[in-house]
Amino acid sequence: MGGAAAAGAARWIQRLSAARISTEALQRGQSRVIDASLTLIRERAKLKGELLRAMGGVKASASLLGVPLGHNSSFLQGPAFAPPRIREAIWCGSTNSSTEEGKELNDPRVLTDVGDVPIQEIRDCGVEDERLMHVISESVKTVMGEDPLRPLVLGGDHSISYPVVRAVSEMLGGPVDILHLDAHPDIYDCFEGNTYSHASSFARIMEGGYARRLLQVGLRSITKEGREQGKRFGVEQYEMRTFSRDREKLENLKLGEGVKGVYVSVDVDCLDPAFAPGVSHIEPGGLSFRDVLNILQNLQGDVVAGDVVEFNPQRDTVDGMTAMVAAKLVRELSAKIAK
Amino acid sequence: MGGAAAAGAARWIQRLSAARISTEALQRGQSRVIDASLTLIRERAKLKGELLRAMGGVKASASLLGVPLGHNSSFLQGPAFAPPRIREAIWCGSTNSSTEEGKELNDPRVLTDVGDVPIQEIRDCGVEDERLMHVISESVKTVMGEDPLRPLVLGGDHSISYPVVRAVSEMLGGPVDILHLDAHPDIYDCFEGNTYSHASSFARIMEGGYARRLLQVGLRSITKEGREQGKRFGVEQYEMRTFSRDREKLENLKLGEGVKGVYVSVDVDCLDPAFAPGVSHIEPGGLSFRDVLNILQNLQGDVVAGDVVEFNPQRDTVDGMTAMVAAKLVRELSAKIAK
Amino acid sequence: MGGAAAAGAARWIQRLSAARISTEALQRGQSRVIDASLTLIRERAKLKGELLRAMGGVKASASLLGVPLGHNSSFLQGPAFAPPRIREAIWCGSTNSSTEEGKELNDPRVLTDVGDVPIQEIRDCGVEDERLMHVISESVKTVMGEDPLRPLVLGGDHSISYPVVRAVSEMLGGPVDILHLDAHPDIYDCFEGNTYSHASSFARIMEGGYARRLLQVGLRSITKEGREQGKRFGVEQYEMRTFSRDREKLENLKLGEGVKGVYVSVDVDCLDPAFAPGVSHIEPGGLSFRDVLNILQNLQGDVVAGDVVEFNPQRDTVDGMTAMVAAKLVRELSAKIAK
Amino acid sequence: MGGAAAAGAARWIQRLSAARISTEALQRGQSRVIDASLTLIRERAKLKGELLRAMGGVKASASLLGVPLGHNSSFLQGPAFAPPRIREAIWCGSTNSSTEEGKELNDPRVLTDVGDVPIQEIRDCGVEDERLMHVISESVKTVMGEDPLRPLVLGGDHSISYPVVRAVSEMLGGPVDILHLDAHPDIYDCFEGNTYSHASSFARIMEGGYARRLLQVGLRSITKEGREQGKRFGVEQYEMRTFSRDREKLENLKLGEGVKGVYVSVDVDCLDPAFAPGVSHIEPGGLSFRDVLNILQNLQGDVVAGDVVEFNPQRDTVDGMTAMVAAKLVRELSAKIAK
Amino acid sequence: MGGAAAAGAARWIQRLSAARISTEALQRGQSRVIDASLTLIRERAKLKGELLRAMGGVKASASLLGVPLGHNSSFLQGPAFAPPRIREAIWCGSTNSSTEEGKELNDPRVLTDVGDVPIQEIRDCGVEDERLMHVISESVKTVMGEDPLRPLVLGGDHSISYPVVRAVSEMLGGPVDILHLDAHPDIYDCFEGNTYSHASSFARIMEGGYARRLLQVGLRSITKEGREQGKRFGVEQYEMRTFSRDREKLENLKLGEGVKGVYVSVDVDCLDPAFAPGVSHIEPGGLSFRDVLNILQNLQGDVVAGDVVEFNPQRDTVDGMTAMVAAKLVRELSAKIAK
Amino acid sequence: MGGAAAAGAARWIQRLSAARISTEALQRGQSRVIDASLTLIRERAKLKGELLRAMGGVKASASLLGVPLGHNSSFLQGPAFAPPRIREAIWCGSTNSSTEEGKELNDPRVLTDVGDVPIQEIRDCGVEDERLMHVISESVKTVMGEDPLRPLVLGGDHSISYPVVRAVSEMLGGPVDILHLDAHPDIYDCFEGNTYSHASSFARIMEGGYARRLLQVGLRSITKEGREQGKRFGVEQYEMRTFSRDREKLENLKLGEGVKGVYVSVDVDCLDPAFAPGVSHIEPGGLSFRDVLNILQNLQGDVVAGDVVEFNPQRDTVDGMTAMVAAKLVRELSAKIAK
Repeated sequence: MGGAAAAGAARWIQRLSAARISTEALQRGQSRVIDASLTLIRERAKLKGELLRAMGGVKASASLLGVPLGHNSSFLQGPAFAPPRIREAIWCGSTNSSTEEGKELNDPRVLTDVGDVPIQEIRDCGVEDERLMHVISESVKTVMGEDPLRPLVLGGDHSISYPVVRAVSEMLGGPVDILHLDAHPDIYDCFEGNTYSHASSFARIMEGGYARRLLQVGLRSITKEGREQGKRFGVEQYEMRTFSRDREKLENLKLGEGVKGVYVSVDVDCLDPAFAPGVSHIEPGGLSFRDVLNILQNLQGDVVAGDVVEFNPQRDTVDGMTAMVAAKLVRELSAKIAK
Repeated sequence: MGGAAAAGAARWIQRLSAARISTEALQRGQSRVIDASLTLIRERAKLKGELLRAMGGVKASASLLGVPLGHNSSFLQGPAFAPPRIREAIWCGSTNSSTEEGKELNDPRVLTDVGDVPIQEIRDCGVEDERLMHVISESVKTVMGEDPLRPLVLGGDHSISYPVVRAVSEMLGGPVDILHLDAHPDIYDCFEGNTYSHASSFARIMEGGYARRLLQVGLRSITKEGREQGKRFGVEQYEMRTFSRDREKLENLKLGEGVKGVYVSVDVDCLDPAFAPGVSHIEPGGLSFRDVLNILQNLQGDVVAGDVVEFNPQRDTVDGMTAMVAAKLVRELSAKIAK
Repeated sequence: MGGAAAAGAARWIQRLSAARISTEALQRGQSRVIDASLTLIRERAKLKGELLRAMGGVKASASLLGVPLGHNSSFLQGPAFAPPRIREAIWCGSTNSSTEEGKELNDPRVLTDVGDVPIQEIRDCGVEDERLMHVISESVKTVMGEDPLRPLVLGGDHSISYPVVRAVSEMLGGPVDILHLDAHPDIYDCFEGNTYSHASSFARIMEGGYARRLLQVGLRSITKEGREQGKRFGVEQYEMRTFSRDREKLENLKLGEGVKGVYVSVDVDCLDPAFAPGVSHIEPGGLSFRDVLNILQNLQGDVVAGDVVEFNPQRDTVDGMTAMVAAKLVRELSAKIAK
Repeated sequence: MGGAAAAGAARWIQRLSAARISTEALQRGQSRVIDASLTLIRERAKLKGELLRAMGGVKASASLLGVPLGHNSSFLQGPAFAPPRIREAIWCGSTNSSTEEGKELNDPRVLTDVGDVPIQEIRDCGVEDERLMHVISESVKTVMGEDPLRPLVLGGDHSISYPVVRAVSEMLGGPVDILHLDAHPDIYDCFEGNTYSHASSFARIMEGGYARRLLQVGLRSITKEGREQGKRFGVEQYEMRTFSRDREKLENLKLGEGVKGVYVSVDVDCLDPAFAPGVSHIEPGGLSFRDVLNILQNLQGDVVAGDVVEFNPQRDTVDGMTAMVAAKLVRELSAKIAK
Repeated sequence: MGGAAAAGAARWIQRLSAARISTEALQRGQSRVIDASLTLIRERAKLKGELLRAMGGVKASASLLGVPLGHNSSFLQGPAFAPPRIREAIWCGSTNSSTEEGKELNDPRVLTDVGDVPIQEIRDCGVEDERLMHVISESVKTVMGEDPLRPLVLGGDHSISYPVVRAVSEMLGGPVDILHLDAHPDIYDCFEGNTYSHASSFARIMEGGYARRLLQVGLRSITKEGREQGKRFGVEQYEMRTFSRDREKLENLKLGEGVKGVYVSVDVDCLDPAFAPGVSHIEPGGLSFRDVLNILQNLQGDVVAGDVVEFNPQRDTVDGMTAMVAAKLVRELSAKIAK
Repeated sequence: MGGAAAAGAARWIQRLSAARISTEALQRGQSRVIDASLTLIRERAKLKGELLRAMGGVKASASLLGVPLGHNSSFLQGPAFAPPRIREAIWCGSTNSSTEEGKELNDPRVLTDVGDVPIQEIRDCGVEDERLMHVISESVKTVMGEDPLRPLVLGGDHSISYPVVRAVSEMLGGPVDILHLDAHPDIYDCFEGNTYSHASSFARIMEGGYARRLLQVGLRSITKEGREQGKRFGVEQYEMRTFSRDREKLENLKLGEGVKGVYVSVDVDCLDPAFAPGVSHIEPGGLSFRDVLNILQNLQGDVVAGDVVEFNPQRDTVDGMTAMVAAKLVRELSAKIAK
């Protein structure tokens, strides 16, 4: 259900609770729904983990976790529909099942799937955003608890990176380095009054101490506040204006040494809209798809988790080109994680 | 994930189970996942039921249950993506929240939502179709167990009508009458070797004794076998060729007396593709939207459950016209159920 | 410029005026812009009127007046782009220049054009809605002042019907009868706090005493308030639910006797979206195109003015089908007006 | 190659022939190409005829003959691309292979295919329209020469009906009755200087004495000349304005007695564009698909040949709805022809 | 109204004038309409200029002037619909209001808007192209007369660059240097008999002595005549074939010294159609969006005026990607002009 | 007719032949159809050859030969519809008739056209793939037999390159060098059991000894088997991963010395889908259009024949962008061939 539906549902639950039902009864019901949701994730992760450990010989394996959340977007909510479309495109018959450097995606040691966090079902019971963000964090931790699974999160809008990175850092016991590909810095203190906005997630991450270095690549829609926040948090911001100068450096990154590893967050709109028209914020002048692959394939470091966010199926071309683009990003990121 | 993904997943699970893991261990894992799935439906239904009973004054209320299953389709699998799109369109800001005859959809006594059966997550664990169909039936029974909720199922392809009607009939303790709007009879003995095919669901229903009368309206793609199976099961088949003759009768139906009530199954392709282009099987010469509403609004009988199936978002127009059409069918069916 | 632009512009004008510029200076500037706008309409109408009177032999002639206003829409603002698209489709080479009953549109005695009211240019100077509505009324009166021109207004959203009907009634010296084809009654007291909303225009018209009878045809999205307001103002509301019963009456209407004539207001969404997908509010179950023509072609009465509103080019099909539909409505209405 | 290419080609051939090559040499080359084209049709028809006669028990069988000609269209040339798209849609896996009244299309006694007349290849050799029209006529006669094949022609634009009907009448030795479904009468004396225009084909047919009665149904874009030409040739013109009055008569037609049989010519734009958007001339207010089937299925008479023309794939919806509509018209016409 | 409409209108005006109305009377009417049009531009420019001067501290400010003229295009006339779409996209909520280098577009010292020249309204009164071109020149001069406004013209097809550059040069009292980004040189002596064709505008400019240097960048559809005309006028033509060689030079341009400044003319089809599909002439192999920004952002020189032309909304993608592209070109050009 | 139709037809022919008709009779019929098809190609080639030789002064001229074959594709069959769309786009009025380096396409010494091999008509008579491949080879030889024509083949899927290269090599009496632009190596031993698959054509070519060097450029979807087969046959495989390193070498190729010349095979999916969305296999990360032109325009060697394959019109954008891309590839290849 869309944001309007969830808002409506939340409204009547509050009205009812005000009238006849005790707050405790309502919260008990919500807790039961949340517990059942986490149990579903846990049981799926456990089954996948058991099987992988039985196979043996694998140190790290990418495991897809969908987070169909779009309501913290400032403009369009379509990213909530992305996870099933990306999964379909990953396995689409029009391409083969091997990554560019030869890893086989059909091999569960490279890629497994633990399904979606039931975001809309939880919101519809009147659960507030702060608690929802904790459910996302708990889900990520659940996946990481099943060695050798490493979470590769399918957004959803960019607000989900905050609870995901928080969980990764808390689970590993220290900060990570983040490679963040995006047209926007997403580092506003708060956007339109929403501290969980998709435009503020990296402010929350830096405040929480979850990252040591934050590299932002592909920037081309950035305000004065965006640059000031960048300086305040010591962010390394690479703007498209100077990409041809920066190209060599970015195609030879070495990250994650001395911290708990590398987190890669790919906002699909880092790409020029020619390559990825299915996004909410069309911002011409971006990276080519090959530019992104050059950066990712040459990155040195231990990638412990990642996300691919902000694909909006409601804006895609009729033959789903952006879904294929998002899927190939996931495929190549899986190859980077798995070992 | 699409059918290809699930098929691939099932394959490796079987390979693993053959090799190192005992069948029992695998089945225990599957059972844990299924139990968690049903628990999630149950807790949501319980919460909605408690609140409605606390409000009081309501005898029957429509409750949406999504079944995102497309793999039993013979042609395209897009209907697996339908439930979230229909929900979004129900609450879309471009129309108001009142049905044509004045029921208020924001009132939980008219319409609630218990979320989706996690079909893809279950299939991806290697669960076979027969067991999956029982999970659907169990989910429907779970909803019906929470008085005054009545299930209004969002497909999904038409194969889901079989486990849904079976559950309704078993829960009520006897057969129902079915009003079935469709371009096709869906009554083949088995289609391309699949007894659970979306083209066979009504054969399964009639064999099981779950329906007394079955009226099929809107037929215009029917083979010799379709007509013979119709005769064999005593189905009342109304073809579009003679619709202008049958119109008056169909706009004054009285069903469900002497049995446990009426079940309404609406395949969106009963409509002419001019009115509903977003379907897998384009079959010109169908009903107009007003024809369908005239039949439904004038139907006399106690509607105990229903479904809206075969909407395929991957074939819809860019502005989502068929989603709006499917949503209005759900809205008006809710009005018919609620009292 | 869109609503956001105009809102932004208004904001800085107010800021400036607060700071350094006297209110009088600002208002003088606005008045000069408005005067220039009305002068442009007047000179074009005068030229067309002079030529028609020189030709002689014509009692009434339809004259197009575009009102590209979309900001009073509750959902999408695309109708502001409609007038040039409708004009293009009227003269499109894919059809001939004769109406169904044989009037020749190339004959200026049937159809002329006085251009658009420069709505966006006026709003961008900080002019408020109330004054803008008066500019629309003045423009209509300017056209009517040039005998034998009769205004056929191209919307724009439905909010423009209020200032247009007000002008028609004031110019003729009494109320008219209105035939209003629409999916919605547009008669709310006020919508989302906007008394000039496109959902309130007919409340304003009835309060002002500008209409004796108001017939609404095609209704299928109407709330309790919509029906109550209808009763309060004595509106004759025909809902689609009962259209097959009402058809004969509606195809034989006689209006305008004893008052100053008939005004016809056609909201393109009166049609089923199968026939007119390019609208902001998709509401299945509407009239067919032939139903609308049957009502208009058989209407008896002196049509003194009219409008065709709510066509939204941003939602049209790629080959512009709804533009052709809106254009044919304008063509047939012109034939009805001209004599 | 499109019209521009063929026109360019014709130009250089003429230039060359003027310069160095004798007219006789050029004409010999053209004749060789035309002879080879007709030989290809003949050998395919012969093979299909031999097989059908060997099967036995069939008196008349529909045989598809594609005529990919679009250059006599006044507006768009897309119909030249229609035949392969219609064939694909006839056999498309999304529907079954049985007609509404139960004939089996996979049975060659109902439907065979003799391929396309290579129109573009012939034009590109500098062959003029008059000779091209004779090649079409010869192709039709070639098919009719192989008993029991009856030609069902896939257009192309409507200009092809003239050489087709001429061939049918000459082959049978007398006039036929024609049922012509269309938004336009196509009966201008000559259109934009082209006597073979798709807007003039029925003037040519009537002048040649190839038809006794000509019934035109679905008309809604007709000029004064169109009505006068209609009267001059004694055409029975049924306009959409009065369709509700004429419906009963048109759904009970009896044609072809006392002449050589019935020819059915279906211009896809007879349908309202809601049902068939993929046409060059969008003309709202047309027949529904069911209206057309009611007329065709109830027609009494011996249908000796027919055509389905003016489907324009370049204007179709993304999922090819109009191709499916054209294909179903061909399927149901085949059932009418075969016996 | 489209070109067909205007042509029709012009025809009847001429017919009338021949018959009964004196040429003087017609010309008086036309002059009144033109005067009113220019008055509207003048009053808006005056209001904006007054406000800016009151704010103080600004030497040059970009001011949008729309010229919705498409009839001098050789192929499609859609660019006449571009100005309102570009304005909407400039202020679209999906991006922020700051340019890449940090100028704030909401600040009127950077960007104001004086509205559209009412091209269609003037043409519809029978005004010929030569006079129309003078109205465009007068409008540009009117804007330049209000210090510190500098015209940034929104086309329209490329024919408008001639009257705009002529006005800029005449107003400043000498030639400018022109940076012209385009797939075509637009320098034919005359195209299809039209000396005002969009393919000839730069021939007119060079003949008039309005430019000293003319640099053309992005060329990839150029004939022998195009190259010869280039040589004749001393044009510096940079073809895409050699862009990788020329890149460094073009990304470091210094123009306008010793003349009256720099004029920048951007034809949207300079971009590869991957980046800008919404153009009339699809010519693969063009510049990337970032290539264009690199050239513009690094250009040294005093930009006194500019235009963005040939965006064709009728060919854009469904989500309006090319509108966003044109808008970002306007935004970045505004930043270049303002100081 | 699509693959389904041809498959159905083949089925009934076999059934009939089994029943009543001797194999010899059926084969005689098939041979007559094939002979007639080759005669049509021969007569057209002869006419074009005669004219060119009469003009004189031309050593090599590109001659288009369409091969509308799509059934050996593993995923979608749309490429069978490509040849007429490419021809239309070559001559489309939106661009001029001159290549980038100044050759005039209207000059028959640069480009002629011999039409299409009637693939679908031959398959529908029950002819098997092996014989069909020989018909394609014979057609190519027929064109090459008419000096100075050189075949430029319009696919169709990539399976056609095998019979085309075989014919070229046999006709010239030795191997050629091949420049192969593609996202995939198409060199599997056999794909899904089909040795003629579009994924195996280059394995067949190398086995047959028809090529000395095979350079594959643009690869980015390649499996282990693809790389092993590449090594086995000594193929020079250039992957996109290393394109920036390889660029200089690839933009300065010298091929064909010591063998019979150069063959260029362009699979449209070598381009990034941003530049060519109309393909069956969307594989992001490909060449830009300018990259391809740089490689082709700088290639040194005698190009004796070539093909442009795998354009799928059913996946193109609404305004046919990929058709324009395929057409420009054909235009520039023609310039490379002609001398």
